[in-house]
Amino acid sequence: MRFDIISVLPDLLTSPFAHSILLRAQKKGVAEIVVHNLRDYATNKQKSVDDYPYGGGSGMIMSIEPFALCIEKLKSERDYDEVIFMSPDGETLNQTIANQLSTLKNVIILCGHYKGIDQRIRDIFVTREISIGDYVLSGGELPAAVVVDAVVRLIPGVLNDETSALSDSFQGELLDAPNYTRPADWRGHTVPDILLSGHQAKINEWRHDEALKRTQERRPDLLE
Amino acid sequence: MRFDIISVLPDLLTSPFAHSILLRAQKKGVAEIVVHNLRDYATNKQKSVDDYPYGGGSGMIMSIEPFALCIEKLKSERDYDEVIFMSPDGETLNQTIANQLSTLKNVIILCGHYKGIDQRIRDIFVTREISIGDYVLSGGELPAAVVVDAVVRLIPGVLNDETSALSDSFQGELLDAPNYTRPADWRGHTVPDILLSGHQAKINEWRHDEALKRTQERRPDLLE
Repeated sequence: MRFDIISVLPDLLTSPFAHSILLRAQKKGVAEIVVHNLRDYATNKQKSVDDYPYGGGSGMIMSIEPFALCIEKLKSERDYDEVIFMSPDGETLNQTIANQLSTLKNVIILCGHYKGIDQRIRDIFVTREISIGDYVLSGGELPAAVVVDAVVRLIPGVLNDETSALSDSFQGELLDAPNYTRPADWRGHTVPDILLSGHQAKINEWRHDEALKRTQERRPDLLE
Repeated sequence: MRFDIISVLPDLLTSPFAHSILLRAQKKGVAEIVVHNLRDYATNKQKSVDDYPYGGGSGMIMSIEPFALCIEKLKSERDYDEVIFMSPDGETLNQTIANQLSTLKNVIILCGHYKGIDQRIRDIFVTREISIGDYVLSGGELPAAVVVDAVVRLIPGVLNDETSALSDSFQGELLDAPNYTRPADWRGHTVPDILLSGHQAKINEWRHDEALKRTQERRPDLLE
């Protein structure tokens, strides 16, 4: 799967894509993540990518031309399944959307910045708008990294132990049961006896009960 | 405001904290963001910070001791308002929570990784669990960066134009109205006439109507 991310702050994304599972996925050739500097597509002398909003108001608006030129160049090189704009107005990312996206081949992600982007970019080029949650961030870069991380780990072959992804919270509709590791006694705080019992069937039952209890307490909406 | 972030992948967070508004906030002395390498607090010879789960199952669980030692060291140096664990089980981040957090002075954020962390860390040290959304990520690092970004931009003095933050989506209960900037005609795609009219009262009314319409269409839940 290939991600082309268009950003005015490409360097912000350097370290998140150079570690952990995203690094491994790229090394394995399962994922390709290319970050494009929007400023390279600015056409005016000042290399500016934003301008004052029509109708007045505070904040700068990102111009249509640089995004258009970058998207058109990419589209001339390969077909894209989606052009995603990271936006607080978009559909809220969840595991179902992440699963859907993980089946795609080529995706462009536009990162907004400043006050917003020219609406015509959204009307003409964007096929899907995604939000990572109901909060305001400085730009679309961290949200783009979140989407890439959520999606890439679902591509077969990325995680070493595939059952590990399947038992995560949300993937199975329940939150995860409490986890414990050594030591069994840490300054008097002990691990539940059942986990040391060796009775795997009872352990599995306890885990299911605990996952259900936690979900009921914290996120009853997931059970509806 | 000070953030102490404890992570097994501290380098993953280098570039998000070195750009844009987070960089500016640190330069202004309004925010201090310190990332601690959990591995520096490992006590065994292998410098390991995780171990196999009690009760079996796939994936590794982060051990209690390194987190405990790092948290205890930080707490010996200053008082903390919250010890936040980034977790899919936590309360979902929203603008209200971001506003609350922006009034705090010192906050520790724990980033989980691998399959999870020892439940005793949560029981003994964590005062608040926050999720950035209903999706599974590789670790708590990107969520921690998202929280820091959402919170820091709300601290007075961080944004140059404070009205800019106040008119963002969510801050005012409505999604933002469409934005436009030059050129007024881009390959035949024009800006709405009203925005070029100069009638500020009518423009404000149009923006309010458009924001309301967009919110009704996309996020009717925000209006309830």
